[in-house]
Amino acid sequence: MNLLIINGPNLNLVGRREPGIYGDKSIDSYLESLYHRYSEISFEYFQSNHEGSIIDKLHEVGFNTGLTGIILNAGAYTHTSLAIADAIAAINVPVVEVHISNVHAREEIRHHSMISPVCRGVIAGFGLDSYRLAVESFIK
Amino acid sequence: MNLLIINGPNLNLVGRREPGIYGDKSIDSYLESLYHRYSEISFEYFQSNHEGSIIDKLHEVGFNTGLTGIILNAGAYTHTSLAIADAIAAINVPVVEVHISNVHAREEIRHHSMISPVCRGVIAGFGLDSYRLAVESFIK
Amino acid sequence: MNLLIINGPNLNLVGRREPGIYGDKSIDSYLESLYHRYSEISFEYFQSNHEGSIIDKLHEVGFNTGLTGIILNAGAYTHTSLAIADAIAAINVPVVEVHISNVHAREEIRHHSMISPVCRGVIAGFGLDSYRLAVESFIK
Amino acid sequence: MNLLIINGPNLNLVGRREPGIYGDKSIDSYLESLYHRYSEISFEYFQSNHEGSIIDKLHEVGFNTGLTGIILNAGAYTHTSLAIADAIAAINVPVVEVHISNVHAREEIRHHSMISPVCRGVIAGFGLDSYRLAVESFIK
Amino acid sequence: MNLLIINGPNLNLVGRREPGIYGDKSIDSYLESLYHRYSEISFEYFQSNHEGSIIDKLHEVGFNTGLTGIILNAGAYTHTSLAIADAIAAINVPVVEVHISNVHAREEIRHHSMISPVCRGVIAGFGLDSYRLAVESFIK
Amino acid sequence: MNLLIINGPNLNLVGRREPGIYGDKSIDSYLESLYHRYSEISFEYFQSNHEGSIIDKLHEVGFNTGLTGIILNAGAYTHTSLAIADAIAAINVPVVEVHISNVHAREEIRHHSMISPVCRGVIAGFGLDSYRLAVESFIK
Amino acid sequence: MNLLIINGPNLNLVGRREPGIYGDKSIDSYLESLYHRYSEISFEYFQSNHEGSIIDKLHEVGFNTGLTGIILNAGAYTHTSLAIADAIAAINVPVVEVHISNVHAREEIRHHSMISPVCRGVIAGFGLDSYRLAVESFIK
Amino acid sequence: MNLLIINGPNLNLVGRREPGIYGDKSIDSYLESLYHRYSEISFEYFQSNHEGSIIDKLHEVGFNTGLTGIILNAGAYTHTSLAIADAIAAINVPVVEVHISNVHAREEIRHHSMISPVCRGVIAGFGLDSYRLAVESFIK
Amino acid sequence: MNLLIINGPNLNLVGRREPGIYGDKSIDSYLESLYHRYSEISFEYFQSNHEGSIIDKLHEVGFNTGLTGIILNAGAYTHTSLAIADAIAAINVPVVEVHISNVHAREEIRHHSMISPVCRGVIAGFGLDSYRLAVESFIK
Amino acid sequence: MNLLIINGPNLNLVGRREPGIYGDKSIDSYLESLYHRYSEISFEYFQSNHEGSIIDKLHEVGFNTGLTGIILNAGAYTHTSLAIADAIAAINVPVVEVHISNVHAREEIRHHSMISPVCRGVIAGFGLDSYRLAVESFIK
Amino acid sequence: MNLLIINGPNLNLVGRREPGIYGDKSIDSYLESLYHRYSEISFEYFQSNHEGSIIDKLHEVGFNTGLTGIILNAGAYTHTSLAIADAIAAINVPVVEVHISNVHAREEIRHHSMISPVCRGVIAGFGLDSYRLAVESFIK
Amino acid sequence: MNLLIINGPNLNLVGRREPGIYGDKSIDSYLESLYHRYSEISFEYFQSNHEGSIIDKLHEVGFNTGLTGIILNAGAYTHTSLAIADAIAAINVPVVEVHISNVHAREEIRHHSMISPVCRGVIAGFGLDSYRLAVESFIK
Repeated sequence: MNLLIINGPNLNLVGRREPGIYGDKSIDSYLESLYHRYSEISFEYFQSNHEGSIIDKLHEVGFNTGLTGIILNAGAYTHTSLAIADAIAAINVPVVEVHISNVHAREEIRHHSMISPVCRGVIAGFGLDSYRLAVESFIK
Repeated sequence: MNLLIINGPNLNLVGRREPGIYGDKSIDSYLESLYHRYSEISFEYFQSNHEGSIIDKLHEVGFNTGLTGIILNAGAYTHTSLAIADAIAAINVPVVEVHISNVHAREEIRHHSMISPVCRGVIAGFGLDSYRLAVESFIK
Repeated sequence: MNLLIINGPNLNLVGRREPGIYGDKSIDSYLESLYHRYSEISFEYFQSNHEGSIIDKLHEVGFNTGLTGIILNAGAYTHTSLAIADAIAAINVPVVEVHISNVHAREEIRHHSMISPVCRGVIAGFGLDSYRLAVESFIK
Repeated sequence: MNLLIINGPNLNLVGRREPGIYGDKSIDSYLESLYHRYSEISFEYFQSNHEGSIIDKLHEVGFNTGLTGIILNAGAYTHTSLAIADAIAAINVPVVEVHISNVHAREEIRHHSMISPVCRGVIAGFGLDSYRLAVESFIK
Repeated sequence: MNLLIINGPNLNLVGRREPGIYGDKSIDSYLESLYHRYSEISFEYFQSNHEGSIIDKLHEVGFNTGLTGIILNAGAYTHTSLAIADAIAAINVPVVEVHISNVHAREEIRHHSMISPVCRGVIAGFGLDSYRLAVESFIK
Repeated sequence: MNLLIINGPNLNLVGRREPGIYGDKSIDSYLESLYHRYSEISFEYFQSNHEGSIIDKLHEVGFNTGLTGIILNAGAYTHTSLAIADAIAAINVPVVEVHISNVHAREEIRHHSMISPVCRGVIAGFGLDSYRLAVESFIK
Repeated sequence: MNLLIINGPNLNLVGRREPGIYGDKSIDSYLESLYHRYSEISFEYFQSNHEGSIIDKLHEVGFNTGLTGIILNAGAYTHTSLAIADAIAAINVPVVEVHISNVHAREEIRHHSMISPVCRGVIAGFGLDSYRLAVESFIK
Repeated sequence: MNLLIINGPNLNLVGRREPGIYGDKSIDSYLESLYHRYSEISFEYFQSNHEGSIIDKLHEVGFNTGLTGIILNAGAYTHTSLAIADAIAAINVPVVEVHISNVHAREEIRHHSMISPVCRGVIAGFGLDSYRLAVESFIK
Repeated sequence: MNLLIINGPNLNLVGRREPGIYGDKSIDSYLESLYHRYSEISFEYFQSNHEGSIIDKLHEVGFNTGLTGIILNAGAYTHTSLAIADAIAAINVPVVEVHISNVHAREEIRHHSMISPVCRGVIAGFGLDSYRLAVESFIK
Repeated sequence: MNLLIINGPNLNLVGRREPGIYGDKSIDSYLESLYHRYSEISFEYFQSNHEGSIIDKLHEVGFNTGLTGIILNAGAYTHTSLAIADAIAAINVPVVEVHISNVHAREEIRHHSMISPVCRGVIAGFGLDSYRLAVESFIK
Repeated sequence: MNLLIINGPNLNLVGRREPGIYGDKSIDSYLESLYHRYSEISFEYFQSNHEGSIIDKLHEVGFNTGLTGIILNAGAYTHTSLAIADAIAAINVPVVEVHISNVHAREEIRHHSMISPVCRGVIAGFGLDSYRLAVESFIK
Repeated sequence: MNLLIINGPNLNLVGRREPGIYGDKSIDSYLESLYHRYSEISFEYFQSNHEGSIIDKLHEVGFNTGLTGIILNAGAYTHTSLAIADAIAAINVPVVEVHISNVHAREEIRHHSMISPVCRGVIAGFGLDSYRLAVESFIK
């Protein structure tokens, strides 16, 4: 099983950024433990603050029949990017949307997601554990 | 570990109701397989079509220190019941919100949840597998 | 032909409640004359002020192939209950929505019905005669 | 008993137009069977695609004490014509609003009727049978 | 003088629930002191988490000429229940709406009350003392 | 001085229609007295229930340099007809908008006029006397 | 006949203020010519930039049976002052609302008047001549 | 105990103004009976139609440690004055908001209060008796 | 190839009407040059200020298999006529929507088209050349 | 250089009022230091809680060619006073809008300013230093 | 004549992406045939999924007097990018907006274009042929 | 003191772009004079049309304790980029928001800023001088 984790804008700062919301564990050390726990899965990781680069990445891998799924935390682009939503709709590999924080308990603009309707499912609010639950969703 | 699964209105009909949205597996046979998979966990199950009965149940168990968590699929009450949201906010046991369908890909009224802000996290769109992911969320 | 008439909240008070809007004939004496007029039809009647009980009733009878149709006046739940709408969508027996008053000539909240999209048709504004017209709709 | 049936824009095309919504029976053949069924009633029929002509017709007949009622399917003008609503409010003969399709299950603009508040009642969603139910509404 | 106090959903938990908003005195001990203070008044008390049960209760007592008034804290149903509002409008006994917290200083959904227009008056924000002020409103 | 008075839909019924709003004097007898009072002015009168005919009339006279002005009561088209607004903007003769009733004290849809921005001025609420004030507006 | 003209905020600057909108004739010289033209009428004039002073003035004269009417240009308070609207509703002397500019052709906030529903009528867009038309409205 | 009662715009006219809404008892005679009933309390009374004067008054007394509380009926300013709300938030003396009429049963603009979020509590709809209930709220 | 060009309200005035928006070339001289340029195409032209007449025309030609397409500039009816939209949806001949001006750069009401969803495509903003581009769209 | 600083409602209380938002330095001591720092500039200061008085002041000085500019903190009137905006538009002296707090980080009603469109510029969020930056804006 | 065609996000996938909406012809093979058909025109082509790169490109060529025009299909950025709209407004070369699909017949967010007001014109719904019509728009 | 000035999309064109709004002085020559005026401050300058590059830059410098502050004119991204707002919230260096034009006097979309709530303060409308005022804001 092959999974690609894509993180959008500002998620490179997790652990350093607003710890009351995102926790104080860095994304790198979290991913290391995740890879360790699911050692039978082959993971790729991609992070970018550029909407266009996320789209480029989705195009690059999105027709790859060997890729089981994509776990996408689009950060703030979740709420503003119709272009990323179009990219998800355009490709074949299924995408699961994740959020570290419970977006519904924050400002109103974070209550609406542009990409949810074209994702397979949504997982939000479990801290970094949201990524693990997304991995689990691909293990039937 | 003890978990309570609460299903709201019309979820007793899963397997029989709009299979294009909810699948054709009955909720009972699904739960049986779930209990089997997580045999180390003690499960309780409660279903009601009555908003008030769901609140009564939350009150009954919500201060029970032996209960690890509640997995709640409030069905249509997700979108209309401030009273259930108040009940979740009032109790101590953490609640995880689940949905079988991807509510964000359906009618606009299903895009907003009254209860998300007071739940620990939200899992939606994975079919009946959403319940399993909610169980996983309690296994650290 | 078998028909079930379901009345929602406060409709037990018809004849006694706001006669300027609902008339001064009691629902019981009206139904008696209706049954008499359509003596070839077998009627059942159910009234509840509980949203959950209306859903329970719809589930109980909604897969009964011997039931020709349901005539539903959901009262105020017409405008607030997505859960009853989901129940109607879930069952097989067709439902006709009726209203005693012309809801469109009253407060704005009564102009929108949650259940109309999943009902076969809507009849409103003819006083208690709305029920008779609903009966007529099942006589082809 | 004398009844006038008024059909608004595009209803001359019923049977030929979007049969998935309006059915494939022509309005003329339907009316013929309706007149036959209610042979004791004297019917007049008027159809126009012109908002102004519908108003002219309502004025022409609306103070006629010999006319029992008007059955009006204003088509798309239902949702846009305050002028027809004003005409209905101005006249003495009662008007019943009918729709072939269940307008509440269609696009949002069709959920609101300009004329409902000034009509005696509304019947929608029963196909061409909606006209018969409107006739029934005048038979006490 | 006879007064009925009706408490809606989650108000059984007052004293135990979100003390920052509702205080830490239990509703029972508060009512005891209230009855003591107004010993010349005969009180009845009713609490339910069920919208339908509140309506049933209003019907049961609402035409009782011996009942001076009803003090109603409908909790979250204040903001969502048109059915309770209809019940209040249907009965003869006057109803005073009370709230423990200042609902206008909380989330936006709590700024609008469905039932205020059909109540005699509204008292909000005085903590449990709101009930006493409601009692005072019946003492002319 | 030459003035054209244009009346829109249902205004032919003034005197006969909803006398509580429009008074019980017929438009014809009013105009007769108006012409008498301003005998030095040459008046033309045009009434139609057809939006298109009002536009045709505006085109016909709108470039006539001998015409001092147009007094337009567009009735319900005031609130719905962008096409009449466009016609007024297209022509050279100034148009004064009049209303018999105080449209701002009626339903919300009557608070907004499509044509006001392209008219010279607006006079509303003086009963039939609104027409006289419009005549006065052309007498400098 | 006695008339009181009340001008609200910034109207003292007419002639000096934004001449493209309000013209370049001062309000004083205009009023002088108006008084001259209607020399049989006794006029009083009051201007204030204070919402409260306009209310005080309305109270002071509003029960005076010798006062025929009030001509009120409330300026910007037209669009924001519910308190002035309440004062107009409270008094007995009829009030006519006037505007120099065509408020409907300006910014959206000027399209809605708080006071129109409680005034006898509205005259807008005729420049300073709007005041004369308001005077005319009192001459039957 | 010392209490200050502040009445806003048009409330000087109570008894004379729209008696269907505000009753026909004058505010002065009401206050006299109130002072008599609570003779142990020292009352001050202030009324103004000026938003600024109400703010000035709140500033003048708002840091006075000898003043138990302020009973404020801000009249129409309730719904439009953020400046009065800011003044209430700025001072130390607690303010109770009162209304004579049930504002929630009137026009929509009266359903929202700018000042409720910064007041201790709200009492509305009990006629002039609302002031007495506010007095009671300061008697623990 | 046969094409029908339909122009709606006020478009007969092009060349004469608001030249800053619509240019100063008359529609007739433009069409002459268009016909000349596409001499191999047989054109019909129809203009009306009546919504109903446009619908009548669409019905008359809309099932004609010899007609290649319809080029429709519905003028202001573009933004208000659901009835024309219904007529387009009802017929078989494809319709292309054109506008002379860039409607999106004008008032907000012109940003939304009722008919776009049922037209094959939309061409706007190229002045009278928009018609030529519509002709080109039928030349594959 | 001559500058007038105008402070609106409640700004007299700065230093004493909600220090978490406005700081604990009094406006008087701040202004003293400001005057000292810009000793080459002649300052005038005006504060009022009365909307009308602010307008009066703007009129009084607004055509004074010797006045370089006005620094206006309109407090809560920023968000509600179209009349002050009209006064600013009416005068010749340029006005700079200032706010002590970052109004955009507070309640939604404070995100919109009535006066910004007619001011030269806006400075918000720098505490009392906002006044100094406004002074700087006049020093080219 | 020199034309630049700019395609925005996901348009590189045309032919491969949602063929029901965008067709199954690749953008490359379409452009080849377009260049062939208009062999007298010199074309440049640019595609990017990056909003910033589209702006960079517009800046690079936008003051080039040798460039006749730009044909821009901004894809999803059409509906979300004010920055691209600002770039179009900033440059001198005219821009024509095109869309392959009929955006008005799709989700509501696609009904509004940020860039239309600053483009010369808009062409939408003709499949890939929309690009050819845009080319035609530059051939006078 | 070290300051970083970041300019967003299209601000490289200042001096060349819409001079009526942005002036005709180039950003480079302005910055030169600014650096000269504040020669004791060390400035860095960064401009990009890419949302992602602005975020990258904010991350790169945002935890640098030697950087006094950031002056950010995010151009159109001010109104659409939640991702830049998140980046500002994530970093430690304070950010001051500037605008050359008075954004509140332009189109409605420019009245709301996504980034204001997380900036220290906002300066808008002073032309290029807005940057100098932002520099001043860091000089205490």
